[in-house]
Amino acid sequence: MTRIAVVGASGYAGGEIARLISSHPHFELGTLTADRNEGRPVRQVHPHLRTLGDQTFSGIDIDVLSAHDVVVLALPHGHSGALGETLAHARPELTLVDLGADRRLNDPEAWERYYGGTHYDPWVYGMPELVLADGQTQRSRLAGATRIVAPGCNATAVTLALAPLIRAGQIEPADIVSTLSVAPSGAGRALKEELLASERLSSAAAYAVAGSHRHIPEVIQNLSNARVSGVSEGMSVSLTPVLVPMSRGILAVNTARVAPGNTGKTLHDTLVQSYGSEAFIDVLPDGELPGTGSVLGSNTVALGIGLDPATQRVTVVSAIDNLYKGTAGAAVQSLNIALGLEETAGLESNGVAP
Amino acid sequence: MTRIAVVGASGYAGGEIARLISSHPHFELGTLTADRNEGRPVRQVHPHLRTLGDQTFSGIDIDVLSAHDVVVLALPHGHSGALGETLAHARPELTLVDLGADRRLNDPEAWERYYGGTHYDPWVYGMPELVLADGQTQRSRLAGATRIVAPGCNATAVTLALAPLIRAGQIEPADIVSTLSVAPSGAGRALKEELLASERLSSAAAYAVAGSHRHIPEVIQNLSNARVSGVSEGMSVSLTPVLVPMSRGILAVNTARVAPGNTGKTLHDTLVQSYGSEAFIDVLPDGELPGTGSVLGSNTVALGIGLDPATQRVTVVSAIDNLYKGTAGAAVQSLNIALGLEETAGLESNGVAP
Amino acid sequence: MTRIAVVGASGYAGGEIARLISSHPHFELGTLTADRNEGRPVRQVHPHLRTLGDQTFSGIDIDVLSAHDVVVLALPHGHSGALGETLAHARPELTLVDLGADRRLNDPEAWERYYGGTHYDPWVYGMPELVLADGQTQRSRLAGATRIVAPGCNATAVTLALAPLIRAGQIEPADIVSTLSVAPSGAGRALKEELLASERLSSAAAYAVAGSHRHIPEVIQNLSNARVSGVSEGMSVSLTPVLVPMSRGILAVNTARVAPGNTGKTLHDTLVQSYGSEAFIDVLPDGELPGTGSVLGSNTVALGIGLDPATQRVTVVSAIDNLYKGTAGAAVQSLNIALGLEETAGLESNGVAP
Amino acid sequence: MTRIAVVGASGYAGGEIARLISSHPHFELGTLTADRNEGRPVRQVHPHLRTLGDQTFSGIDIDVLSAHDVVVLALPHGHSGALGETLAHARPELTLVDLGADRRLNDPEAWERYYGGTHYDPWVYGMPELVLADGQTQRSRLAGATRIVAPGCNATAVTLALAPLIRAGQIEPADIVSTLSVAPSGAGRALKEELLASERLSSAAAYAVAGSHRHIPEVIQNLSNARVSGVSEGMSVSLTPVLVPMSRGILAVNTARVAPGNTGKTLHDTLVQSYGSEAFIDVLPDGELPGTGSVLGSNTVALGIGLDPATQRVTVVSAIDNLYKGTAGAAVQSLNIALGLEETAGLESNGVAP
Repeated sequence: MTRIAVVGASGYAGGEIARLISSHPHFELGTLTADRNEGRPVRQVHPHLRTLGDQTFSGIDIDVLSAHDVVVLALPHGHSGALGETLAHARPELTLVDLGADRRLNDPEAWERYYGGTHYDPWVYGMPELVLADGQTQRSRLAGATRIVAPGCNATAVTLALAPLIRAGQIEPADIVSTLSVAPSGAGRALKEELLASERLSSAAAYAVAGSHRHIPEVIQNLSNARVSGVSEGMSVSLTPVLVPMSRGILAVNTARVAPGNTGKTLHDTLVQSYGSEAFIDVLPDGELPGTGSVLGSNTVALGIGLDPATQRVTVVSAIDNLYKGTAGAAVQSLNIALGLEETAGLESNGVAP
Repeated sequence: MTRIAVVGASGYAGGEIARLISSHPHFELGTLTADRNEGRPVRQVHPHLRTLGDQTFSGIDIDVLSAHDVVVLALPHGHSGALGETLAHARPELTLVDLGADRRLNDPEAWERYYGGTHYDPWVYGMPELVLADGQTQRSRLAGATRIVAPGCNATAVTLALAPLIRAGQIEPADIVSTLSVAPSGAGRALKEELLASERLSSAAAYAVAGSHRHIPEVIQNLSNARVSGVSEGMSVSLTPVLVPMSRGILAVNTARVAPGNTGKTLHDTLVQSYGSEAFIDVLPDGELPGTGSVLGSNTVALGIGLDPATQRVTVVSAIDNLYKGTAGAAVQSLNIALGLEETAGLESNGVAP
Repeated sequence: MTRIAVVGASGYAGGEIARLISSHPHFELGTLTADRNEGRPVRQVHPHLRTLGDQTFSGIDIDVLSAHDVVVLALPHGHSGALGETLAHARPELTLVDLGADRRLNDPEAWERYYGGTHYDPWVYGMPELVLADGQTQRSRLAGATRIVAPGCNATAVTLALAPLIRAGQIEPADIVSTLSVAPSGAGRALKEELLASERLSSAAAYAVAGSHRHIPEVIQNLSNARVSGVSEGMSVSLTPVLVPMSRGILAVNTARVAPGNTGKTLHDTLVQSYGSEAFIDVLPDGELPGTGSVLGSNTVALGIGLDPATQRVTVVSAIDNLYKGTAGAAVQSLNIALGLEETAGLESNGVAP
Repeated sequence: MTRIAVVGASGYAGGEIARLISSHPHFELGTLTADRNEGRPVRQVHPHLRTLGDQTFSGIDIDVLSAHDVVVLALPHGHSGALGETLAHARPELTLVDLGADRRLNDPEAWERYYGGTHYDPWVYGMPELVLADGQTQRSRLAGATRIVAPGCNATAVTLALAPLIRAGQIEPADIVSTLSVAPSGAGRALKEELLASERLSSAAAYAVAGSHRHIPEVIQNLSNARVSGVSEGMSVSLTPVLVPMSRGILAVNTARVAPGNTGKTLHDTLVQSYGSEAFIDVLPDGELPGTGSVLGSNTVALGIGLDPATQRVTVVSAIDNLYKGTAGAAVQSLNIALGLEETAGLESNGVAP
């Protein structure tokens, strides 16, 4: 059994990975830390984690953490980078997984513009199904990795919808437009007025318009890696999230202009061929579209596609569970690969619906 | 008092206009018809309409209907066109308002492609705030009108967000992309599996991708009327609705490429100038974005805007109540204008929130 | 025009009464205070209140407040009592309305047990429709009143459902059991983890079981006032609220044992006779039951009733909008009576549905 | 592997048991029948069941069904009884599980009063944790059973909350009052107006008041079996369900008068002792209360309890997932016991939250 600690386990991402670890056939849950909740029973914060029994949250102790096989960092960006360094120095052979953004961006300038603060060395990007320019997938980079960063949830929904079409040269990299309906759980457990139930029940509201969303440079980095040229030149992504009243889920409506000569069928075929053997990508039959309800509680990405002949824009709709495939599931899947386990171990592909 | 009958009053649009009429200072609610519910108390179907007392639904009787001052047709498309003809012949001086699509499109080909069946003569389009190429607004056409058609709810959210920018030549008419989060009440009261509560609670799902949505030609018609050239050439709109779990509301995220030389400020200024004196359009301060919760139960369109310098796309976010401003409120507002009443009579501009 | 200030106007109750005042034919909105939001535009906090334009929140200034005709206190309990004293001394002829609990309970012991802290003199209880032992209603006490306290929202839903049956001696005062499905907006705008959207979307959860809910002594006080004996002896109320995912509303399921000799019809008749002339109480036809969706955005209390022959318990179901009839609407209605205006002025009886 | 067919697999209960079977370590999913959907891909109806691949729905063929090891009947009451007889005759050694009500009630009179139509012989009741008068639990009856009926979802929530207290004589069997907040998925996939999303979003509404709910006789039967006297005399249950806007879940607020001499602690102790070794019953620490969000997607029953000293009523709050523990999970758990497998095989005890 691989023994795994989770740092920052009282948030939603931390709770989700604790849940997945606790039911994983080869993983064993170790220490759970939570600064403000040190000493408190885990189940007061996560009452759904019945199997954790009487376990309590700890504070951060480097010796304790580094005695595990794996440490997962479930902290806000800006907080995990330095801790990752410390843990890596304390015990270099430790496997580290960061669920936050600190290790996602290669480009220090993009980091500075979208996040700011210290830019840490990127770790191996935990999106196994990402098609790469060289014809492999990102899982080839994950095999044996000991430093892994999980993708952003919105970046996952957009990237996996478009990367195969970018790689095939079937869509133009310029002027991609993605609008995402997102659950407020993606914003975490912070006590902010705009995250109160009364504000979110019965309302849909956009935020982070005008190019300010932090997942934009991540999407561009991913799609550039998928592009045969491997460059980000000429690529532009307009990305707008809309908070909607659901507990989990991201429904991304991604549109791009198609390259000449393509039809709905050629585009759909590319998705089917790229993802045909993927355990967690579900390319729906032509003409069908996904909803987030169908992937709730699963690691599945559901994809539907349609080409508008009038605008020559293709629309690829992707549905994920933001906490599962969007965060914790991607981490577990990547860890499975890194550790040489079966990639699907401990991960659901059927959703909990309705 | 103007006496108004509603045909098809058992649906959501019919119920909403009955509600607005019943509290209007100059309107009086007359006959309410409902084919399948003839003889049934209105309040069994619309328990929220307490002021209707013991009124029951009638069947359609041309003599009875044409004895009113105004008849509102709240029927699915394909059903109101012929009835409108009949009523107009029975009593030409009758004022008629169609809440459905039969009278919206000028172009018979567009009608055939998106709806099919008989194309009826268009009526005066009930969107008073639509800026026109000639510098006037659509309200100039509504004054004195006796044949009015209410706009589609999604078309309202998209058109009012973009028309001033189109007219000012500040955005390109090509490659407009709109994604809308919509309440299922916009789809009416039909007994369809995809409209069941269990299907819609906790899920976001796109439909009508790939250029099939029926409000697309309506948006193009509107924006062409706003365009100084007055033509639809080179205009393209990609429009995708996403059903989200809320009772009312449309949140439209509309993006378009900006013409050279514009800034966030010049674009925001155009909205402020175009709509500054509009009672029902609320251009938020630069940097703020609307949510549908704030306009629920009101005739207000809330607009927020942001320019993404990287993609040179402007995003205009519009929020409306689909049943109010999106349907029944637009009809009442247009009727107010047509009848020479105060335009705001009987209409709320404050939303019911939270 | 009666000029009204609202103290604590940035909360949900304060926002709702500002909304009702702003559309009232005889009221005019004056100063709005909000401690933490002093100087901030009201619409940043209440974007739905479009008619308030550029108004900003003030701090508390006794001179400014007492220059109004009416001051409404929309503060948490424990905060309004002392301010009420101060304002009453500053200008005795001022009309004061407290939306909080400080002036609701007559019994200092009950206050001490359920709230604690200073017990202030009770003001006139703002529930006009409450039937009293002497055959009058509470509106007889409200005529001419200058010190008014609005009822608790849950207390309203329970009291109005049961008071006529208590007064008629048709139900036993012992062993009343009420379970209420309540919207989280009733808990106000406090930044508490249990009020986050992610916690409340997709979950129903009870709180304050075991007799701890603060509206229990208020219900007992009300029902005792309705009881012909006028006493609270032998009366017991078990009251449990359940938070459910909706923006507004209380659905109270109230049960009590019936006195011998009653039938469903005799019980229904009592409600119809007691409330037949009430503008804001909607006793549904026998066999029909209310939902909160039908009263959202209105001052209406909808009531349905059924007698279980096996248990000899009657169930009276009441539906209200917690912020409207449950709080701000009751205050406006009471003010209308106190000031000699038409009782229904500025108040909706039709709900906004669906 | 045990091969299992599901009859009526296109509904919500049928979909849920297909989901559980498909991930069960010892079960294998066989034929899925669905009358109206014969020949249609399962995933068009249940898009969340990705692992079912291209399987299609069949019609009912007795030979095909009886070639399985187990047949699960997921049909409305009145439809499964006769089919059960037919299958039992076709192959007596077949294990049969009915998810509907046809085999739940022992008393033909109760059946006639609450359901009507043919009363079939009851099968073994699939509620393993039900404490019985003789000190055993219902699982003792399930061992080796080949005819099993799953409990009603509301009956589960009420019964498991109260049975230990009834058995211990700590609460009075007379005058039990239960009010349940229930998800509309419990009402199945029927195309009824009251189940439309627009009707249920933003509303809470009671139904089946006044003793008409069909789970009442089932609760009385269960609690009578738990009672040391074993009789139903003097037992009365007032049960009212309230539809609330969530996709899954039942939150039952159950109250009963306590017998003299009990305290909150003695009552809590009884629950802890009765259920201490139950894998799927989670008695929360004294003072904590459950929400349905914590048990969504799990077979767990979460229980919280409080004693109101003023009313001498104890409130036991129970939370379940209506489709999982309330229906399909109970069936799988019972089958596990019947077949001699580990009782928890294939069943989750951690919920999917938030």
